[in-house]
Amino acid sequence: MTTDNRQMWAELGIDLKKHDMLMNALPPIYKEIYLSQRNRPQGMGFFDFVVGDIHGIRVRELRQHAKDGAKVVATYCVFVPDEIVLAAGAIPVGLCAGTNFSIQAAEQVLPHNTCDLIKSSFGFKLGRTCPYIQASHLIVGETTCDGKKKMFEILSEYQPVYVMEVPNKKNKVSRELWLSEVVAFKGVVEKLTGNKITEDKLAQAIKLVNGKRRALQRLYQTRKANPPPISGKDALLVTQVSFYDDVARDTQQINALCDELEKRISNREGVFPPNCPRILISGCPMAIPNWKLHHLLETSGAAVVCEESCIGTRSFSDLVGEDKRSMDDLLKAIADRYMEIHCACFTPNTERIEDILRLAKEYKVDGVVHYNLLYCHTYANEAVRVDKALEKEGIPLLRVETDYGDDSGQLRNRIDAFLEMIQG
Amino acid sequence: MTTDNRQMWAELGIDLKKHDMLMNALPPIYKEIYLSQRNRPQGMGFFDFVVGDIHGIRVRELRQHAKDGAKVVATYCVFVPDEIVLAAGAIPVGLCAGTNFSIQAAEQVLPHNTCDLIKSSFGFKLGRTCPYIQASHLIVGETTCDGKKKMFEILSEYQPVYVMEVPNKKNKVSRELWLSEVVAFKGVVEKLTGNKITEDKLAQAIKLVNGKRRALQRLYQTRKANPPPISGKDALLVTQVSFYDDVARDTQQINALCDELEKRISNREGVFPPNCPRILISGCPMAIPNWKLHHLLETSGAAVVCEESCIGTRSFSDLVGEDKRSMDDLLKAIADRYMEIHCACFTPNTERIEDILRLAKEYKVDGVVHYNLLYCHTYANEAVRVDKALEKEGIPLLRVETDYGDDSGQLRNRIDAFLEMIQG
Repeated sequence: MTTDNRQMWAELGIDLKKHDMLMNALPPIYKEIYLSQRNRPQGMGFFDFVVGDIHGIRVRELRQHAKDGAKVVATYCVFVPDEIVLAAGAIPVGLCAGTNFSIQAAEQVLPHNTCDLIKSSFGFKLGRTCPYIQASHLIVGETTCDGKKKMFEILSEYQPVYVMEVPNKKNKVSRELWLSEVVAFKGVVEKLTGNKITEDKLAQAIKLVNGKRRALQRLYQTRKANPPPISGKDALLVTQVSFYDDVARDTQQINALCDELEKRISNREGVFPPNCPRILISGCPMAIPNWKLHHLLETSGAAVVCEESCIGTRSFSDLVGEDKRSMDDLLKAIADRYMEIHCACFTPNTERIEDILRLAKEYKVDGVVHYNLLYCHTYANEAVRVDKALEKEGIPLLRVETDYGDDSGQLRNRIDAFLEMIQG
Repeated sequence: MTTDNRQMWAELGIDLKKHDMLMNALPPIYKEIYLSQRNRPQGMGFFDFVVGDIHGIRVRELRQHAKDGAKVVATYCVFVPDEIVLAAGAIPVGLCAGTNFSIQAAEQVLPHNTCDLIKSSFGFKLGRTCPYIQASHLIVGETTCDGKKKMFEILSEYQPVYVMEVPNKKNKVSRELWLSEVVAFKGVVEKLTGNKITEDKLAQAIKLVNGKRRALQRLYQTRKANPPPISGKDALLVTQVSFYDDVARDTQQINALCDELEKRISNREGVFPPNCPRILISGCPMAIPNWKLHHLLETSGAAVVCEESCIGTRSFSDLVGEDKRSMDDLLKAIADRYMEIHCACFTPNTERIEDILRLAKEYKVDGVVHYNLLYCHTYANEAVRVDKALEKEGIPLLRVETDYGDDSGQLRNRIDAFLEMIQG
């Protein structure tokens, strides 16, 4: 925590006293959960560094960009098209939050039985403890769940918010609505930045973001190996950081890590014993520093090999078509790609269930853990159908509903029982 | 409970043993809550009769219609256009449920932290205790909240379900999406019934349903009088019954009741002492037999004079334009009218807050009670903005979050304190 950082935070209106508490709390947690792992890939050094100065160096970059005239656009969902933000010379920053540190502040305003992800995110604004929100010029929300949809209305009283409508169904008219939302968003970003988005710039941004997605696909590909060359915790962290780091640098770092992991695979080198139980986690997103479930699983003898999640496969599985030239075609390609995200906001969302079954096979998992944030209705209801589908396929399932509180003891008991069961 | 009824229920696949429990439980509750009221309008006799044979006479009618070739369409929300159902010779039946009797069955499948309205509705199907669902040929759902949107997916495993997409925003494209949903719904109903919806039939159905809405408007108009000529409980019951009774008969009965109420007003005759505290209830719908809040308020010295609710003003405040002739114009008029429902599913939904302020003035209320079903995210979040708006106008507000359980003791304490406060 340098003096420079503190001055920057003060300039951003951060509540320094509260913020110090957060900054002091994180290092020991990180040490316990991350640095305690054995045989970590060297490529994780970059990500350790990023977390080590989590509210420093990247915020400083954003501030520098802003001084140079660029705008910062805060987002909370994989439906907001980064390509459009980047094509206008602005910087997208994913801000979903994963700590109960900021929840008390949020509960002064939001209903108690809102999911912790929403409360944590909102609380960072209310408590002025997140320099990323403070440094952003526009918050872009969406309508993927009731809690967020309505929270954004309240948030708009504190900072400029624009909301994109994600439809509920996936038919022709719903797709047209979404396309029109993508087109409208281009206008919003152009107005915010004062920059016109050209075909060339948009095509370039599409390639840039696809590059990051390809790197994450490559990372997840390595996790199919037995033994996996990287822990689930580390892979989750890489995915989490990809939401707010500089896209080009992040892509480079993920690819460098993958070079190392692929070498490990050639040498049959892994971070867990061969044939340890392999787990697919499916469900709600896990934002930094929400590492609880992975940590419990991986300190109970399992390896998390895939996340079917917004902070996981849903964020990178589909690419935007790169062969388009006209603005209409480019925007259509973007709209089409985002409609392929199999979010539980859609009805029906059978594609997600198919994804889970497919991923379970591809990653050769021994069991699935369905992760539900308490009070998240869409995933909780969808779990009923997931349960049925997995049962039919004979794939063991553990349904976990939790929040950001410490229920580790109880969870570990359930996880141990589950792992025992799947190991027969 | 006649032998005829039991035979009909058996034919409908009703779980007779469980159903008997329900049928035996209702009369004493109704007696305590309704029949104990003093100086009730004679016109309530019809509605007492309807509730007295709640699963009998109307179900028999539906069965007779079905034998004559008509279809029964079950709905759970004011967004499903009854006009289209009626124009195809089918019968719409609103089926939202308001009892914890059916919740235990629902919780075997649905997430526990789903609102009781959804659980109660779903539980009636799962437990086979609602002859209306059993007698219906199609269930029509909608996407107004996460809980219902996803519950309908599960419900579709038990009975045919069709879901209409209600958009999240109210801009031009969202309105186009909704219009296309209304058009598609016409096709669905035509296919179900085998009847073509003609312009004439649709225009006729529009007038029919508008007639009911006008009658309910007239009923609510009488409640503006001081003293009110009808209790809030009775007015709520009339609105509840309007969701499943025959439209023409119901309209006639409401109007007959209004004749009587208007005479009472001329005679300055009321059911409460003049100048007792007048309350507007705003928020989530109250389905039969959810009378808890009204009962508590009206046995604590207050008069409920209006419900800003789906089972309240939102169901009848707007009429469909009656001057249209072509099918396109008729469908557009229907779509336009339904988009005027100020449901918390929309973002933003500032119009609802304006409604509350307007109704508070029109009905000369002394306070507003915001009624929130536990786990209903949209209304719970909107309550934050309602709170702010009412505070600005100096209108006292009590925010109640509850379910179908018995928390009457605690609620009565809060209501008493609130009524004391507003009476200075």
